[in-house]
Amino acid sequence: MPVDPVDLTARLIRCPSVTPEEGGAITLLADALSAAGFEVHRCDRGGIANLFARIGAKGAGRSFGFNGHTDVVPPGPAQDWTHPPFGGLVQDGVIWGRGAADMKSGVAAFVAAAIDYITQSPLPADGALVITVTGDEEGSSVDGTPAILDWMTDAGETMSACLVGEPTCPQVMGEMIKNGRRGSLNAVIEARGVQGHAAYPDRARNPVHALVSLLAGLTAQPLDAGTAQFQPSTLQVTSFDVGNPATNVIPGAARAMLNIRFNDAHSGASLSRMLQDRAAQVATDMGVEMTVEVSISGESFVTPPGPLTDLVQGAVAAVTGVTPALSTTGGTSDARFIKNHCPVVEFGLVGQTMHQVDERVDVADVIALKAVYGEILRRYFA
Amino acid sequence: MPVDPVDLTARLIRCPSVTPEEGGAITLLADALSAAGFEVHRCDRGGIANLFARIGAKGAGRSFGFNGHTDVVPPGPAQDWTHPPFGGLVQDGVIWGRGAADMKSGVAAFVAAAIDYITQSPLPADGALVITVTGDEEGSSVDGTPAILDWMTDAGETMSACLVGEPTCPQVMGEMIKNGRRGSLNAVIEARGVQGHAAYPDRARNPVHALVSLLAGLTAQPLDAGTAQFQPSTLQVTSFDVGNPATNVIPGAARAMLNIRFNDAHSGASLSRMLQDRAAQVATDMGVEMTVEVSISGESFVTPPGPLTDLVQGAVAAVTGVTPALSTTGGTSDARFIKNHCPVVEFGLVGQTMHQVDERVDVADVIALKAVYGEILRRYFA
Ligand SMILES: [Zn+2]
Ligand SMILES: [Zn+2]
Repeated sequence: MPVDPVDLTARLIRCPSVTPEEGGAITLLADALSAAGFEVHRCDRGGIANLFARIGAKGAGRSFGFNGHTDVVPPGPAQDWTHPPFGGLVQDGVIWGRGAADMKSGVAAFVAAAIDYITQSPLPADGALVITVTGDEEGSSVDGTPAILDWMTDAGETMSACLVGEPTCPQVMGEMIKNGRRGSLNAVIEARGVQGHAAYPDRARNPVHALVSLLAGLTAQPLDAGTAQFQPSTLQVTSFDVGNPATNVIPGAARAMLNIRFNDAHSGASLSRMLQDRAAQVATDMGVEMTVEVSISGESFVTPPGPLTDLVQGAVAAVTGVTPALSTTGGTSDARFIKNHCPVVEFGLVGQTMHQVDERVDVADVIALKAVYGEILRRYFA
Repeated sequence: MPVDPVDLTARLIRCPSVTPEEGGAITLLADALSAAGFEVHRCDRGGIANLFARIGAKGAGRSFGFNGHTDVVPPGPAQDWTHPPFGGLVQDGVIWGRGAADMKSGVAAFVAAAIDYITQSPLPADGALVITVTGDEEGSSVDGTPAILDWMTDAGETMSACLVGEPTCPQVMGEMIKNGRRGSLNAVIEARGVQGHAAYPDRARNPVHALVSLLAGLTAQPLDAGTAQFQPSTLQVTSFDVGNPATNVIPGAARAMLNIRFNDAHSGASLSRMLQDRAAQVATDMGVEMTVEVSISGESFVTPPGPLTDLVQGAVAAVTGVTPALSTTGGTSDARFIKNHCPVVEFGLVGQTMHQVDERVDVADVIALKAVYGEILRRYFA
């Protein structure tokens, strides 16, 4: 009997799995996959529940993987929702609740497609089907998908290709595949000068002026004009704080934060160096001290158009009638970790309501998504 | 019997006249001047005690004025002081206490010099001696010297020239006369854009970038190269505040404060217009809203080298042996109000300890200052 992805989505929504709580979701999936004949391992780490499941030979030449997460962002006040956020209500063709779009439906769709596939078709001798689901994608991710990948490396488990089931379609089911993501980097820049009276600026060193000069230089020109696969990189100053209440006092310190979304013309290291160099130059020019603390959330990556993207594009078009565009826009996802192991693409539902009140998804889209994932498996193992 | 300026300084220090408290200081002076034959008026306004005193004919052709203040800034914790801040202790040639330098000694010196002068020499027929002392120079000043000047205008009282007894010497008694002051202006600039996610900057408008661009333009070049009587004007950004804790969110608003000390190449109005114009340009260029709120603390003014500055320079050199330089440096003073009524210069003690813990002044300097003020009166009425 085929697995119903709508029912599985609803049951997953009823697990209150706000990061880092597992909420029963990983266990539910482990039981379902185990019952269907998958070899199941928990790769929990640092209090995070993680799941690895495989059917077919370990280290098989054609090992197709799915990746997703069951953790969700907090729902906020339940009274703001028209349907209970952890109710998993299915009404008039819509599934309601936190995680409906991001991404319990995606997980339910690939688990349902995988179980159906192995029930209906024998895997080829060199084939394997791998499912990885983490309980921390919305948090720091440190002990999420990286923990599964670390465990796999240690255990000799492999994927030849991987599909992440995040919602990727802006408006219409089927319209977009993500074949890469920009990198992301945060920096905190602190400038320390010499405090003084505004009437005697020659006895002070204004750190605000130094920071303004640095940031004006950083924001005046685009970091690049875009690359073959990517939009231009962007730099956004997200905060600038001095907190000086006195109009006649030059403050002694100032602090700014910025975020860079960068394409494959850069790396976290090259941008970090650029920020350090520019800050050092301004510090020297203006006689202040500057420190730049950089944290790299992820490097950019791209899976160039080729066999994997062709396969997924073809399957999506065959099922939905819409030919999906390849895109590298948007935020980060766990694909940034998986790309170090095998070619990876992302395809899933319409993400419009993700992270919002009244998050929801159309029943028809979840059924279509399961069909797309099934078609991908048929084409991959053909 | 000559009035002892050291004793009068000490008695004034014992009046706890932290702005806006009169603390007995204005009353003490009113009594002393009245007893010496001055016509005394209280020009109190808005809870501030102010004193006007004149001897000689009202509206006299040669009416010399002194101006000063008895209010002081708070002493901070008394235990930080080696001598009680309101003790008025005189020890080993030093007078200790809040207001010793700024400027109870200056007031005591000109009151003592004025009483001695009229006791010893008859005023010429066209001569008058005017003394104005306010209880609010350290606060907003709104009801301080301006209230005295308003009252004088209404009453038909005049000054032909005025000397403000603020401490003007950086290090050595006698070295500096202030014959003008720069103007001062504060501005609060607010930028409002469109909040958004750092991964999708095209859907947002970053107000921090707009404010950084505006301030970088304002601080990149000096406002001018200085004028005949003035140092270059200076612009200092004193605060910049966003308060955004989220590294992945473009904030919706940003706010900065700046202070301009400006010379006679500008006016409060011209600078206000310049700020408004530049902000409007950046707002248009960057698609944000900007508002600039300007408050002008004082316009610049200068008393060009001439009879009054020559007279004071000569008197200082004769008494101290030091030829004072003319300067327009430093902060603002009540001379900015008086300059609308008559030529005004400032001369007083060494100001090094003003507004600090253990504020103090040398007994010898106070005696010398009284002698300088007496010499000025002799030369003025000669
Ligand atoms: Zn997600
Ligand atoms: Zn003063």
